[in-house]
Amino acid sequence: MKVCDIGEFLLIKRLLEILDRDPHEILGYDDVSAVKFQGKLLIVKTDMFVESADRWPGMPFSSIGWKSIVMNLSDFAAKGIKPLGGLVSLGIPKDADLASVEELYEGITKACREYEIYIWGGDTSLAKEIIVAPMLIGISDKILRRNGARPGDVLVATGTFGYTSIAYKALFGRYKIENEDLRREVLERIFYPKVPLKFGVEALKNNIVNAGIDSSDGLAWSLHELAKASKVKIVLENTPIPSHVCAQLKAWGLDPLTSVLYEGGEEYVSIYSVSPENLDELHCLAEKMNVDLYAIGKVEEGSGVCLKKEDRETPLEAKGWDHFKYDK
Amino acid sequence: MKVCDIGEFLLIKRLLEILDRDPHEILGYDDVSAVKFQGKLLIVKTDMFVESADRWPGMPFSSIGWKSIVMNLSDFAAKGIKPLGGLVSLGIPKDADLASVEELYEGITKACREYEIYIWGGDTSLAKEIIVAPMLIGISDKILRRNGARPGDVLVATGTFGYTSIAYKALFGRYKIENEDLRREVLERIFYPKVPLKFGVEALKNNIVNAGIDSSDGLAWSLHELAKASKVKIVLENTPIPSHVCAQLKAWGLDPLTSVLYEGGEEYVSIYSVSPENLDELHCLAEKMNVDLYAIGKVEEGSGVCLKKEDRETPLEAKGWDHFKYDK
Repeated sequence: MKVCDIGEFLLIKRLLEILDRDPHEILGYDDVSAVKFQGKLLIVKTDMFVESADRWPGMPFSSIGWKSIVMNLSDFAAKGIKPLGGLVSLGIPKDADLASVEELYEGITKACREYEIYIWGGDTSLAKEIIVAPMLIGISDKILRRNGARPGDVLVATGTFGYTSIAYKALFGRYKIENEDLRREVLERIFYPKVPLKFGVEALKNNIVNAGIDSSDGLAWSLHELAKASKVKIVLENTPIPSHVCAQLKAWGLDPLTSVLYEGGEEYVSIYSVSPENLDELHCLAEKMNVDLYAIGKVEEGSGVCLKKEDRETPLEAKGWDHFKYDK
Repeated sequence: MKVCDIGEFLLIKRLLEILDRDPHEILGYDDVSAVKFQGKLLIVKTDMFVESADRWPGMPFSSIGWKSIVMNLSDFAAKGIKPLGGLVSLGIPKDADLASVEELYEGITKACREYEIYIWGGDTSLAKEIIVAPMLIGISDKILRRNGARPGDVLVATGTFGYTSIAYKALFGRYKIENEDLRREVLERIFYPKVPLKFGVEALKNNIVNAGIDSSDGLAWSLHELAKASKVKIVLENTPIPSHVCAQLKAWGLDPLTSVLYEGGEEYVSIYSVSPENLDELHCLAEKMNVDLYAIGKVEEGSGVCLKKEDRETPLEAKGWDHFKYDK
């Protein structure tokens, strides 16, 4: 059997089963790993950027550096943790321009400054393509988990969805973005994504969120993971898609909701589960920190994920982006 | 300018200059990074295995897994630190056999059991070739540095040199190992290298070593790095090469010492600098822990690295294995 036959998520689970489980690691399958050590939690994450799998057409080197850091920070944001810093393993083709590699590192440095973390060192090696494998580390007393969503909670998202759905269609498909402003906006979003790290950290510090998950693997998939981990049912009532994004998808003859639910991802939006009594405080915090917060649904007793539209509920598939099954 | 024009070590230095320096990172350019945090040191290291650069011909998947962990542990051994565990970023070609990837992970698991560490999680991605990027983390009160060697110290090595020199010649060159026992021994050494981690940890704990460096980039290169960091002169008096290894290199018409000094590496031998009054205690510890310890030279005032042979000193070049300049 080939790895592409079983898909990324099943592969990860099989590989995790081969490894011995550390009794001090408290999360298991989650956005990050968290290890108890002398009364603290050591929180670590690695997400690798691979040129052939992750580089958008036209993606500049500085963007590769920036994004490789931000995609790791996104998982920390969803867990409410600010990392201290980390390392970067870099693979580069033999004939790579020194200037390009330096530009890539300038992108890394810019992202580190923006989010106040440090890269302490790492490794460089020749490789057949560009590989950027950052690992980030944080230390904390507590952490937001995937399993804390409770019936009655409200689900919120720290941003909108849809820009990457457009990007996938336009950069890898036959679709063309006619509006120059939208094209620029889409490129800015996919080349230099941002993540509301401080907001997540403050939300955890103030104990006003019950669970958190990164939505980067796709909205429908992430909601299913949250529902499974928390043993609850999730009802998606409102999917925030900017109107011009919606209009573009419709102009292409596509259903915006389907595109966003199943064919998006990499938006680096955090999804939090909040008790209703904490919702006002969370909105205040979001306003203070310039984060656009959207209530997207609610948590109920049960299992699975449903889409609610005009009082009718339809189940959502547990489908998302899978590197191992779909090629860009 | 291409990256292969400037070489790996100059590239690393240029990239480190682009990054902002964390005032809490105490080592700078060393085998690992060490960051002060709440009175402790957070010690981290990543060394990436890349198929096209690092895979020996015939290297089994379990060996790729094993070696990718051990090559990282080797740096921890040289610093006297036992890591707690870490993460692994894995890149695999789309058509890779699931069984091979599982075998690779079994190799990782075996190495983790042998050295009592855990892999907590990581990332998988499609890539053009096999990439294994482990990052290991330890926490400690103190650490051995490269800059602690003092004039009067004795230099010791935790193993012999030469097996990898034979391997490079035989597996990538036109040379043939005639003796079947030696061939098996060489393959065992390069496929499943070992590292005296506990010995390094005990040596630091008992305060009987002043400095440590991993010799994996080649013996001559590593001694130069140690001399530079400690601002001392190093005199290499004895290079431990097993007699049958020596005989094989000579039978090929090669000078064993030159091969070992400049064309070896990846032996995962730690080199420590020891005050003469602690030498007995260190040898006792080595005996207790079944480590073959060899006195290889001494530290003097001055700079550079010399080879001493029959009372004549000749300078050694700062030359070693460079991924970016030499292809296997």
